[in-house]
Amino acid sequence: MTDASTYLAHAWAARSARAPLSPLQIPRRAPTPRDVQIDILYCGICHSDLHYTHNDWAPALAAAYPVVPGHEIVGRVSAVGADVTRHAVGDLVAVGCLVDSDQTCPICRAGRENFCPNLTLTFGSPDRHGAAPMTFGGYSSSVVVDEHFVLRVPANLDPAGAAPLLCAGITTYSPLKRNAVGPGKKVGIVGLGGLGHMGVKLARAFGAQIVVLTTSPRKAADALRLGAHEVIVSTDAAAMAAHAGSFDFILDTVSAEHDINTILGLLKLEGNLTLVGAPAKPLALSSFALIMGNRSVSGSNIGDIAQTQEMLDFCGAHGITADVEVIPMQQVNEAWQRLE
Amino acid sequence: MTDASTYLAHAWAARSARAPLSPLQIPRRAPTPRDVQIDILYCGICHSDLHYTHNDWAPALAAAYPVVPGHEIVGRVSAVGADVTRHAVGDLVAVGCLVDSDQTCPICRAGRENFCPNLTLTFGSPDRHGAAPMTFGGYSSSVVVDEHFVLRVPANLDPAGAAPLLCAGITTYSPLKRNAVGPGKKVGIVGLGGLGHMGVKLARAFGAQIVVLTTSPRKAADALRLGAHEVIVSTDAAAMAAHAGSFDFILDTVSAEHDINTILGLLKLEGNLTLVGAPAKPLALSSFALIMGNRSVSGSNIGDIAQTQEMLDFCGAHGITADVEVIPMQQVNEAWQRLE
Repeated sequence: MTDASTYLAHAWAARSARAPLSPLQIPRRAPTPRDVQIDILYCGICHSDLHYTHNDWAPALAAAYPVVPGHEIVGRVSAVGADVTRHAVGDLVAVGCLVDSDQTCPICRAGRENFCPNLTLTFGSPDRHGAAPMTFGGYSSSVVVDEHFVLRVPANLDPAGAAPLLCAGITTYSPLKRNAVGPGKKVGIVGLGGLGHMGVKLARAFGAQIVVLTTSPRKAADALRLGAHEVIVSTDAAAMAAHAGSFDFILDTVSAEHDINTILGLLKLEGNLTLVGAPAKPLALSSFALIMGNRSVSGSNIGDIAQTQEMLDFCGAHGITADVEVIPMQQVNEAWQRLE
Repeated sequence: MTDASTYLAHAWAARSARAPLSPLQIPRRAPTPRDVQIDILYCGICHSDLHYTHNDWAPALAAAYPVVPGHEIVGRVSAVGADVTRHAVGDLVAVGCLVDSDQTCPICRAGRENFCPNLTLTFGSPDRHGAAPMTFGGYSSSVVVDEHFVLRVPANLDPAGAAPLLCAGITTYSPLKRNAVGPGKKVGIVGLGGLGHMGVKLARAFGAQIVVLTTSPRKAADALRLGAHEVIVSTDAAAMAAHAGSFDFILDTVSAEHDINTILGLLKLEGNLTLVGAPAKPLALSSFALIMGNRSVSGSNIGDIAQTQEMLDFCGAHGITADVEVIPMQQVNEAWQRLE
């Protein structure tokens, strides 16, 4: 299985769509001149880990087994290749959703690696350079990644709480930036899970007025603690009517089916709602809800490498990490069950 | 029914959702100082006329009977109030979807009358100044309108072909302008009806590369004649795949249920699809289709008065009118049946 160019790492893998995760030795490539080898300290658990591993996205994106999930990785550099200039042994670093791209196409040259047609996701992607045909993710002891895709973690951030920034952080940061969220803007955050709670923290740090929309009145206290100025229970028709036409921007983080048309009515003229959750079933979209007010619905897909570093630096400057519960790797199956 | 402040006009009206149109004498107000009285020469037939008259939009927008439809009006000024400065007796003028607004709210002051919360639609709206409780539209011999809502028709345009510019023209012009359609842009027009054929003509005049998407191969010759550079039959999976990710902007004019997710796949990164048709049922929207490429779906609702005049002047400069079939008023019910 291994030769001088590879080594074995410990990992937790799913052998099929419904199998629990269990230990597996996986081959990793020894660092090439451009590679950074990272001892993984923490890896976030993201809903995408479950969706992919359970083959929920087939046939569009069918899972290839064994699957080693994990794309919110924080660790310490244990070795670097001869040509690596951006990272050194001992650095606290992070790896997010992508570990490679062709780095030559017009999209990559424009610094938008996350949209490269030949990008390599951190797990489950064909791996041009790896020791195995498909990439293995961060539910493992170490990983080897091209330095371009390795991020610096600000020293003041808790490394465990920083891990989810690599997915939930950048996924919410990118649309907030694109929509110029800041002072004087009224911003809605729909949902208060992994994505939503980061959206609240980041939008608050940008200086906007934050309103959390939730179906769970019991989440109101959490929302206010995280930085929201106000909470609307979205089933409260009177509250929704009172806020009609008043939001500049809404970030919708819900990954289950839900009614976006009522939410669209909260937007001002030309207001935008950006979806970052990914409901498996199509949403029902009323064309009237868009036409009355020239409103729009967008999607947003993580962010590029430069913006991910910018987000980490912003979080460092504002002391922002995700709220996390740290569990030992051996309890991952129970944690997944709770998430589901 | 009438006194010195009102007069009777001839009109064609629907007495109920399923009744055919039939003649009716309707009261119109005599021109007040700010009013323009117009002898109607032509009035376009728009799908909205049928939808409203047939009460398709209830309960959101329930029809009030009798309904006199028509909001694509071209006529000649027959009288003006004492304070009117913008129009004179004998002028060729037009009236579109709105005949009044409060003219005082922040939206009106920003010149965006079409989004005024108190706007008065050309038919079926409560009428603050009228001789009847609800406005009566252009399927009539004359109309009286505040001069602010009366447009100038360029002298070189055929008055019959100019009538649909007041709805189909501005509805397509506005999103094409907002999305900076012009040289170097690849633009898709979905559907080739009243809206779509105007979209093709206008986008071509803006200098863009035009691709018509249609489910009807027999419409290809029409599309090319109207100015399209290329036609894609949207059920042709190979043709759709060949154009994937290549469009800057898509104007979707279809008012029936249709699959927008496949069409969204044609857009470049951050590309936008704007809906101007108004399917009665919600569309199925895949969040993936938006997230993969940071794409967006917008709605667009006619345009403001200044932009409507700009559109008419642009059409005058480029010799653009709608393709029309002129029918006598007495054949309106047959024409509606054909449209349905």
